[in-house]
Amino acid sequence: MKAFQEYYPDNLSHCYGCGANNEHGHRIKTYWDGDETVTRFTPEPYHTAVPGYTYGGLLASLIDCHGTGTAAAAMYRQEGRAMDSLPAFRFVTGSLHVDYLKPTPIDVTLEIRGRIKEIKGRKVVVEATVYANGVATARGEVVAIQMPDNFGAAA
Amino acid sequence: MKAFQEYYPDNLSHCYGCGANNEHGHRIKTYWDGDETVTRFTPEPYHTAVPGYTYGGLLASLIDCHGTGTAAAAMYRQEGRAMDSLPAFRFVTGSLHVDYLKPTPIDVTLEIRGRIKEIKGRKVVVEATVYANGVATARGEVVAIQMPDNFGAAA
Repeated sequence: MKAFQEYYPDNLSHCYGCGANNEHGHRIKTYWDGDETVTRFTPEPYHTAVPGYTYGGLLASLIDCHGTGTAAAAMYRQEGRAMDSLPAFRFVTGSLHVDYLKPTPIDVTLEIRGRIKEIKGRKVVVEATVYANGVATARGEVVAIQMPDNFGAAA
Repeated sequence: MKAFQEYYPDNLSHCYGCGANNEHGHRIKTYWDGDETVTRFTPEPYHTAVPGYTYGGLLASLIDCHGTGTAAAAMYRQEGRAMDSLPAFRFVTGSLHVDYLKPTPIDVTLEIRGRIKEIKGRKVVVEATVYANGVATARGEVVAIQMPDNFGAAA
């Protein structure tokens, strides 16, 4: 099964969080799991807040790209279109909110689970929760906006 | 002039965003500028959203650590204490919100300017704005909470 991000057009695959072409980046991969979406990510040892715990900025980044990926997949699903059909749906982040519920351990694979709260016009609102060992440690919301057609076209 | 982060205790200097001891991290440096705080940061070429623009997750990370650093400095200032006096004030992020106002170019030094909105008990609320070439491209709010005394003590 291909991840959402593997359907992104080549010129939009440079994102530090989710671009398959960014060799320095996180290259997250997101999939459907019923009506939810799932990303699994193992932090690097240096992604620390304080030793033993994951940096909150990384969690914000994961929630961000999980959110825009989920938004695209949700739009394809709503329109009954395959993710490799054109024109491609791609989203930018209008706003990002994260509540840090408790410290997130760093030595485990984190699971980010997304839920679509709203689809309205070119806007999709995604709620995403970060789990470590099955415990919710952060909860975020991404307001994703469909990208203008010419965004990133120069690449 | 030393940056706020240079006063962090050694065991709390491992943060990926702002820890002087994290050689893989962003190592941001924040200073007072009157009643505002300022961080300047030049993204790496691979910190891309789409080519030519800065990744929003990086901006969230910069706002996050700028916010916790500003919170600590504000608390020292309110109590009339030098930043190298003990016990050290250090903050964790309770919540983070970012509104992305427009695409942020990647090939410039970004300026993050912070303003203290509220100090109440162990909580400090910081508003932070990201400027590129003098234009505000993102605006965030960090609710910073004073760290429990034993946080990170194991390091």
